[in-house]
Amino acid sequence: MAQVPAGVLKKAVSRALQEDVGVGDVTTAAIVAAGQKGRATVITRGEIVLAGSAAFEEVFVQVGDVTVEFLFADGDIVPAGETVATLKGNLGAILTGERTALNFLMRLSGIATLTAQYVRAVEGTKCVIVDTRKTTPGLRALEKAAVEAGGGRNHRFGLFDGVLIKDNHIAAAGSVTTAVKRARAAAPHTLRIEVEVAKLHQLNEAIKAGADVVMLDNMSVEDARRAVAIAAGKVTVEASGGMTLETVKAYAAAGVDLISVGRLTHSAPAADLSLAVKKGGS
Amino acid sequence: MAQVPAGVLKKAVSRALQEDVGVGDVTTAAIVAAGQKGRATVITRGEIVLAGSAAFEEVFVQVGDVTVEFLFADGDIVPAGETVATLKGNLGAILTGERTALNFLMRLSGIATLTAQYVRAVEGTKCVIVDTRKTTPGLRALEKAAVEAGGGRNHRFGLFDGVLIKDNHIAAAGSVTTAVKRARAAAPHTLRIEVEVAKLHQLNEAIKAGADVVMLDNMSVEDARRAVAIAAGKVTVEASGGMTLETVKAYAAAGVDLISVGRLTHSAPAADLSLAVKKGGS
Amino acid sequence: MAQVPAGVLKKAVSRALQEDVGVGDVTTAAIVAAGQKGRATVITRGEIVLAGSAAFEEVFVQVGDVTVEFLFADGDIVPAGETVATLKGNLGAILTGERTALNFLMRLSGIATLTAQYVRAVEGTKCVIVDTRKTTPGLRALEKAAVEAGGGRNHRFGLFDGVLIKDNHIAAAGSVTTAVKRARAAAPHTLRIEVEVAKLHQLNEAIKAGADVVMLDNMSVEDARRAVAIAAGKVTVEASGGMTLETVKAYAAAGVDLISVGRLTHSAPAADLSLAVKKGGS
Amino acid sequence: MAQVPAGVLKKAVSRALQEDVGVGDVTTAAIVAAGQKGRATVITRGEIVLAGSAAFEEVFVQVGDVTVEFLFADGDIVPAGETVATLKGNLGAILTGERTALNFLMRLSGIATLTAQYVRAVEGTKCVIVDTRKTTPGLRALEKAAVEAGGGRNHRFGLFDGVLIKDNHIAAAGSVTTAVKRARAAAPHTLRIEVEVAKLHQLNEAIKAGADVVMLDNMSVEDARRAVAIAAGKVTVEASGGMTLETVKAYAAAGVDLISVGRLTHSAPAADLSLAVKKGGS
Amino acid sequence: MAQVPAGVLKKAVSRALQEDVGVGDVTTAAIVAAGQKGRATVITRGEIVLAGSAAFEEVFVQVGDVTVEFLFADGDIVPAGETVATLKGNLGAILTGERTALNFLMRLSGIATLTAQYVRAVEGTKCVIVDTRKTTPGLRALEKAAVEAGGGRNHRFGLFDGVLIKDNHIAAAGSVTTAVKRARAAAPHTLRIEVEVAKLHQLNEAIKAGADVVMLDNMSVEDARRAVAIAAGKVTVEASGGMTLETVKAYAAAGVDLISVGRLTHSAPAADLSLAVKKGGS
Amino acid sequence: MAQVPAGVLKKAVSRALQEDVGVGDVTTAAIVAAGQKGRATVITRGEIVLAGSAAFEEVFVQVGDVTVEFLFADGDIVPAGETVATLKGNLGAILTGERTALNFLMRLSGIATLTAQYVRAVEGTKCVIVDTRKTTPGLRALEKAAVEAGGGRNHRFGLFDGVLIKDNHIAAAGSVTTAVKRARAAAPHTLRIEVEVAKLHQLNEAIKAGADVVMLDNMSVEDARRAVAIAAGKVTVEASGGMTLETVKAYAAAGVDLISVGRLTHSAPAADLSLAVKKGGS
Repeated sequence: MAQVPAGVLKKAVSRALQEDVGVGDVTTAAIVAAGQKGRATVITRGEIVLAGSAAFEEVFVQVGDVTVEFLFADGDIVPAGETVATLKGNLGAILTGERTALNFLMRLSGIATLTAQYVRAVEGTKCVIVDTRKTTPGLRALEKAAVEAGGGRNHRFGLFDGVLIKDNHIAAAGSVTTAVKRARAAAPHTLRIEVEVAKLHQLNEAIKAGADVVMLDNMSVEDARRAVAIAAGKVTVEASGGMTLETVKAYAAAGVDLISVGRLTHSAPAADLSLAVKKGGS
Repeated sequence: MAQVPAGVLKKAVSRALQEDVGVGDVTTAAIVAAGQKGRATVITRGEIVLAGSAAFEEVFVQVGDVTVEFLFADGDIVPAGETVATLKGNLGAILTGERTALNFLMRLSGIATLTAQYVRAVEGTKCVIVDTRKTTPGLRALEKAAVEAGGGRNHRFGLFDGVLIKDNHIAAAGSVTTAVKRARAAAPHTLRIEVEVAKLHQLNEAIKAGADVVMLDNMSVEDARRAVAIAAGKVTVEASGGMTLETVKAYAAAGVDLISVGRLTHSAPAADLSLAVKKGGS
Repeated sequence: MAQVPAGVLKKAVSRALQEDVGVGDVTTAAIVAAGQKGRATVITRGEIVLAGSAAFEEVFVQVGDVTVEFLFADGDIVPAGETVATLKGNLGAILTGERTALNFLMRLSGIATLTAQYVRAVEGTKCVIVDTRKTTPGLRALEKAAVEAGGGRNHRFGLFDGVLIKDNHIAAAGSVTTAVKRARAAAPHTLRIEVEVAKLHQLNEAIKAGADVVMLDNMSVEDARRAVAIAAGKVTVEASGGMTLETVKAYAAAGVDLISVGRLTHSAPAADLSLAVKKGGS
Repeated sequence: MAQVPAGVLKKAVSRALQEDVGVGDVTTAAIVAAGQKGRATVITRGEIVLAGSAAFEEVFVQVGDVTVEFLFADGDIVPAGETVATLKGNLGAILTGERTALNFLMRLSGIATLTAQYVRAVEGTKCVIVDTRKTTPGLRALEKAAVEAGGGRNHRFGLFDGVLIKDNHIAAAGSVTTAVKRARAAAPHTLRIEVEVAKLHQLNEAIKAGADVVMLDNMSVEDARRAVAIAAGKVTVEASGGMTLETVKAYAAAGVDLISVGRLTHSAPAADLSLAVKKGGS
Repeated sequence: MAQVPAGVLKKAVSRALQEDVGVGDVTTAAIVAAGQKGRATVITRGEIVLAGSAAFEEVFVQVGDVTVEFLFADGDIVPAGETVATLKGNLGAILTGERTALNFLMRLSGIATLTAQYVRAVEGTKCVIVDTRKTTPGLRALEKAAVEAGGGRNHRFGLFDGVLIKDNHIAAAGSVTTAVKRARAAAPHTLRIEVEVAKLHQLNEAIKAGADVVMLDNMSVEDARRAVAIAAGKVTVEASGGMTLETVKAYAAAGVDLISVGRLTHSAPAADLSLAVKKGGS
Repeated sequence: MAQVPAGVLKKAVSRALQEDVGVGDVTTAAIVAAGQKGRATVITRGEIVLAGSAAFEEVFVQVGDVTVEFLFADGDIVPAGETVATLKGNLGAILTGERTALNFLMRLSGIATLTAQYVRAVEGTKCVIVDTRKTTPGLRALEKAAVEAGGGRNHRFGLFDGVLIKDNHIAAAGSVTTAVKRARAAAPHTLRIEVEVAKLHQLNEAIKAGADVVMLDNMSVEDARRAVAIAAGKVTVEASGGMTLETVKAYAAAGVDLISVGRLTHSAPAADLSLAVKKGGS
């Protein structure tokens, strides 16, 4: 599983801490003695697929004086009521970092948990669940890693590492053929050319024009099946558009290679996790 | 309604664009002619409460050469199928900025829409719906503005602008009384002292110790009602913990002043909005 | 005593070093051998109250290869001619960091020293000396910590963590009552409402409108005494405006709870400290 | 007069605004209507030499929607009770930017005012008053421009644009001669070599070693006079150390070329300026 | 031709100006009157292919008060002795920005000029000249745009937008087949798989394993010809390694699709351009 | 030899890594096992003078988990085919950092190697080879350190640490005399005044006006010799303009003190270095 680059992780965490702690945690500074030690545990309230442990740990690296130990790894299924991680060290630091650390863990585990449900839904087919660019602004790298933790795969990261010709590009070029030709001529040869098609006749044109991948946009299951037959292995076939846990299986069964699901990242509910502090410590 | 400070908005948008566009939009650069003009509209697919229009506009300010006009303001209820905004200008820029701009608008309108449902649920009571610090790391200011757009109010922004004494602080101090006394002695006099109480007997101690606000943590509706009676106007009463659209009304009817709801920001599904490009232009 | 958040301290120091060292200390690079060791001491030339030791230490953490040991803590009164701290390590690094480290220590100890004089001036009363927002741009967190080191307390940090309704806000709202009502309706409930009053009749209106704190702006000692009587414990009373070491005692004796003093931070002369290098070392 | 580079000014102001405004001016946001207009004036309470007008203006450029007009220029003597500048525009923006803008103007005008007193004190001699590196961390460029506004001149900006061999460098090198030789061999040929001397016999060695400038460190006026005679125009002579408004004239009269004064920047009291808002506007 | 993203360009220029101008251009500040106007021209001393005009212009946008007009566009061949651009405006600003602006223009035009020589050398073949990742740290986007200006094409931008399996990856995986399989399974489906091969037998394995592109590493022209025959259009063929202006034609004639040339960016001599100021102006 | 300030080095390397690695090294992430160890060596392909070892090391500090050991120091002559450095640690990290680390080492060693050739060319004279401001935007500090590694010396770093009056400044001032007088009056006294002269008669005026250094701009060797005679030790003499390895000796023999060479930094070909990975490791 690809890791979030260290610099990206550090900046995301430092930004979040700056946002929450700002000029200081006035409550903890006033009440908790500077040297006081403490222990805490992170506990699940429902079953989750874990993701975001690196961000959780990085929060306490930056807050300082707290040791975190995870009892599960990203991608693990953790039952309800389980201890996910333990913390030990400066009590004030634990309290100051708590909310920021949980905000990362809850959102990212929420994404992994939802992804795992989609992956399970297509089990038994060769179809792969992939994410989209519909991520939270500023957290894309972390959210895409969470999709991988949930068993999904990543689509292109952004506009720079994949050619995806959409209807608007086709309209601007005049035709699928012209659009593909222009992309071939100008984009680095290390990138495949993917073309979005809304109708089956466009699929033929895309294949003829030399597309490497086609994305079926909001097609019916029936049309998806026909598209797979037309593609006949010559191009990779991706289905996309409003995929729910109920509908996704049928598309997978239709034989598409990939299904991209926006809600993995734009609408996953947060995983339910809480942190309980215990007095005492080393 | 409070505005997101300009610097905060600009940085959030610039970070998001850098994340998505990176070293360039290879598809658009290859296919769309440099000077080509276009128009586009943003359309709702379901009823939403609008939020995030400033972030949407800022995306195109930074991408350049695109004029955005919103037909609704933040806080407006927009029916399904309605045109929310129109865009006019450089077609390539519209395509390059589209996803980032929609990512902001969909998430923030999602938060406003869910907030409005909670606000409607307590209508007829004096109770105010407020947010929490369970926000997306890096987007707190925007998400809190979205809560206001949905008719909610903001709780403290972070750890620096409010004293909230939780069970762990009380445990560290030894008693509610000591904790409140320490906070009074050390925190700026411009901040109120809020104390989290899980049992009714703690409420009495908190009031006696001089708390300004009490937060009832996961209390039953019945206990909330008793708490309101005990408080008797001497302290502000906030209820918190697992509030759903189904349960929130009963707590409001119990007479609490404020109800804080984590899911407004940590689990709101994205609002369904899309951008459709039209050829041509000025 | 609240600590300056680590990130804030690091950035302030790194900015200062970048400003002073820039592309390199040409004198030291040319003259001092790379591996040469040295020792140095920081000595007071007059009695001071120490503040800024963390910033001083951070300078040498960033310059590298120097160990700093403070013989006094922030808040300690250090007599003239005393050794405040010792340094040991790379001689070139000591020379390169010297000025920046002293600039922090001299300014911050100057603030603590002046604050301590004000605090001593009101000794025997219940009155607390607090700072203002009249701080050096970019150094507020460090200067507010220095005020605490001198025995003062902190007023709100900035515009975001306290409501302070001044004459201009009242004028904009039309009346004290409207201004307070608007603040109650819009500001987070974790913030108190403070109202500036220039005349005694405004004080009554402020109390009636529900202010939590009143700030007496440039009132005479006599009026301050009357204001305290009117307030009668219902609101916290802060006196402000041109407080000198000569006048401050009378206001404190008049019974106000807080006196805010701008010159603690805007006009404190630098504490007189110097660094003397000794050859040799480990 | 040298200008502060635009980038430096912008960053200093943006940092200061971020510090003061943070996540928002809660008072103004709650009370002042979004579109309300206002006017304000900045008034002197004592005679000052103006400095920092560019920083003051930049604050309102960044806050937005406010036009500032200065009636005096940096370097002008402004009598007490005079209107220094007028502001016109968004009332909320004026209130939000007020403190930050005044913090710059008061500190920088304080420096210019004190500098002008030193310059006046040496009038009639050829001696030039220069600043030191004893500036506020993070504000050096602005403070050095304020010294120029007060009629002083700038010493080197930092460790990178001047060679100043102090006693510690001499000790590290073994002798003045070796230190100067090393500096000549390693430093860019565009830099002069200045040597600090505490005793007259060192002065001879410094001149012989090829120093371009000598700095007399805490010498008596009598020794300064002898030093000038020894220097005999072969080297530039700078006097330094504890210069007060009372003692500075005698040193100047002794014939030194430059006198450097640390307190210009480390201990100048803030100039007394206030901002008064007037309702109404365009 | 793809443009350098505006944010990337601005930061590169602002960094360069900060590096050169730092705390101020002491010469110009001292000598040139603040309001003085001037004109200047940029002139070629030898024939060049122009690149970097946007960076040149951006320098003066940031320095301010100077209008730049280019008489040629990026990609144009400019004969020796020709005026490339004219400048008009503040004379001091022209002098302050001159070196930084020329440093960009000379390096980037140097790259374009060398690229054009390589492109000309393979004229008449279908072979495309592409760049590598052997660029100047911090200037990749600008240098890759310069390669395009010279008629070359861009290889992948970095490690994130292309899969290039080198000998070390193959060794780590155990075989070409395993390496390609792992890449197919883990990399986004929007990326092609390129495999570096040093021997012809590896070429067969790469094709069989499903590579999209093969890079012939330091092969002889003879082997390259054989490789093209083996590839037979099933994979794109790139030749790489020590390509000089003398040898490149033979490789192109051997039928490879692409030739990548490190020296386009790592060893291109600067184009010879100078700026001549003329007094006067508008 | 002056070191690049740590902060400057770290930022340059972090920028370069961000540029190359971006959101991740997809090839290595897919193929190389997370825990796999490796060793590698950096080998010269031709004789070089080493420079940039600190940047090379810093790349792997930032990438993490790799130990680098250099067998030569900056400034050493390394024959062809020699091992310059060895690497040991995480194989994936070695592969990810390879290109960025080599890009620094190749460029900087290229500069040192060319500098050493110029230094050798003037051997036997007292003349010193110095660099110019014609450096790569963003890398000046590293490139100037490379010049020192090659045995050259540094001219001023930028516009802020040296006064260099060029023809355009003279034209703006009206005469050499006025220009020098203005510079003396306004620039810090720690800076020398250097004047560019194109004709011998200007040299006399410059000396008379009090210049400390004169730069002979594109003069013939004959005129340079005359200039040295005129200067007669009263001013330092620098020759500049189009110096090649063929012509530089004659100028040095003419007796000038310094020769500045732009191509040291703007046109040095990259040194030929490669990294070879070996499997296994500790």
